[in-house]
Amino acid sequence: MNHPAHKTILSVGSMAFDSVRTPSGKADHVLGGSVNYFSLAASLFTSVKIVAVVGDDFPKAHLDFLHSRGIDVTGVQIAKGKTFHWVGEYDTNLNEAKTLATALNVFEHFDPKLPSTHTHCPIVFLANIDPVLQQHVLHQVKDHELVACDSMNFWITCKPEELKTTLRSVDLLCINEKEAFLLAEENSLEKAAKRIQGMGPSNVLIKRGEYGSALFTPTGIFLAPAYLVDDVIDPTGAGDSFAGAVVGFLAQNGASRTLMNSHPTQWDQLLRRAIIHGTVMASFTIQDFSIGRLRTLTQEELFARREKLLKMMSLGA
Amino acid sequence: MNHPAHKTILSVGSMAFDSVRTPSGKADHVLGGSVNYFSLAASLFTSVKIVAVVGDDFPKAHLDFLHSRGIDVTGVQIAKGKTFHWVGEYDTNLNEAKTLATALNVFEHFDPKLPSTHTHCPIVFLANIDPVLQQHVLHQVKDHELVACDSMNFWITCKPEELKTTLRSVDLLCINEKEAFLLAEENSLEKAAKRIQGMGPSNVLIKRGEYGSALFTPTGIFLAPAYLVDDVIDPTGAGDSFAGAVVGFLAQNGASRTLMNSHPTQWDQLLRRAIIHGTVMASFTIQDFSIGRLRTLTQEELFARREKLLKMMSLGA
Repeated sequence: MNHPAHKTILSVGSMAFDSVRTPSGKADHVLGGSVNYFSLAASLFTSVKIVAVVGDDFPKAHLDFLHSRGIDVTGVQIAKGKTFHWVGEYDTNLNEAKTLATALNVFEHFDPKLPSTHTHCPIVFLANIDPVLQQHVLHQVKDHELVACDSMNFWITCKPEELKTTLRSVDLLCINEKEAFLLAEENSLEKAAKRIQGMGPSNVLIKRGEYGSALFTPTGIFLAPAYLVDDVIDPTGAGDSFAGAVVGFLAQNGASRTLMNSHPTQWDQLLRRAIIHGTVMASFTIQDFSIGRLRTLTQEELFARREKLLKMMSLGA
Repeated sequence: MNHPAHKTILSVGSMAFDSVRTPSGKADHVLGGSVNYFSLAASLFTSVKIVAVVGDDFPKAHLDFLHSRGIDVTGVQIAKGKTFHWVGEYDTNLNEAKTLATALNVFEHFDPKLPSTHTHCPIVFLANIDPVLQQHVLHQVKDHELVACDSMNFWITCKPEELKTTLRSVDLLCINEKEAFLLAEENSLEKAAKRIQGMGPSNVLIKRGEYGSALFTPTGIFLAPAYLVDDVIDPTGAGDSFAGAVVGFLAQNGASRTLMNSHPTQWDQLLRRAIIHGTVMASFTIQDFSIGRLRTLTQEELFARREKLLKMMSLGA
């Protein structure tokens, strides 16, 4: 890591309106979607190009805001109709969202076509969408150097073969603990991770909500706690912004498949540091509805909390 | 910690027969009880004197076994009648035992009287029993230098005032996450810990099962993961053996209230290292029914796994 070279990330995922109720209150038709959270988090580290679809009801001001953060929104299609709408709630177990309604709207016929300006991004993040679309995007990117991906129970259950095809091209899978168990058909973390590594992704990053995360690389295991947050307002977007900071940090520090294969220890350490940043990012996301906290978050705040987290993980007090 | 001075622990708690069913199988009338697990774990670090009651059905061979491990069993009363019997089961959520039946038997009239050889132990561990008995034991110990304690939902709910009286004399409380929330009437970890610190114990160690533990001292917070165990057979005794290794390590390294008050940073670091040992100890306990794994466990095995755990916690890979 002597000469970090910022790399650009291409990310595909959902842009949405969320209506969400949590023990702290509710928010109606606020901005959400995986690529929204992911790109905002990643933009603190490197440049990001996003591919998504919104309806003609989507506020231009929001795309302008993303643009102001250095996010390239020229790959966002604006389709006739309504933007994807997710309605969900969290009970006192803030680790798990309960989906009350999903209106796919324009997302139903999403056909992610990459502008020619987008086909040479070195780092690709395939957020949680139909694995067929994930492959479709990946095929359009030439010479990608690192592919990360998320998925969820719906795709694991309904499109298992398509998901497995995607996974064969993935270097880093970011997935919830329960979904890892479902995908691997195992109920112990290490066994599940090993099984998933056998499906393609040499690196499996398992998200455990308020309990942190567990990373499995070709050379080791890293167990990271979550940062303690006393005032959780809304967990929506925690996982996507976690991934955004992880992949953003990797891209900022010149990560690639080549580094992973030729310097596995250096790669492993880079990923561990990336996870610290992801953990801290997620801890901010959940302190407000929607992207409220991410809007105002500065790098200084992020780094200050990172130092606190490192003290909580250290044997040296 | 230049001149560690081994200190003796006095522990009071239950000796029992357990009948337990887990997803891995079942065991009937096997040896259990908090002081049993605690003392076996602690005995790898320092000398332990235990106070408990068993019935006349309790195998002398088992007390001989504890004695062979350097555990002083002269404070174990043998009462006419049957030994305490706990019947419980775990479903796939191995973090929580479901109690099916409890036959207190001789434990119902347990009156812990300390032999004169037991009243000058510097370190005291009050395992999870009636807080009135915990106080009764503590009053008999002269000049104790450090008091640690466990409790559970039953006492929090049924004897809250008595428990709070005990807590005023406690330096380190070891308690499950759910029980911490119940005791503190808070549902965030940091708030709960602070509330409990206000009740007496300056140090609160919250056990989070397979997700590790969180320590709150006067100077800091430490978040420790659990060691990953692929073959959990029976979680019974995990918490007690965790506490046994924590308190054993503290005693082995000369911990005291004086150290805590006059060298808070040194104390905090000592406690962090103690937790690593507790974590590893618990990971062995759950790999067999009863004390099966603790019977054969060597210090070399414990230290080898400790090194693996430290690598899983390290940013340096």
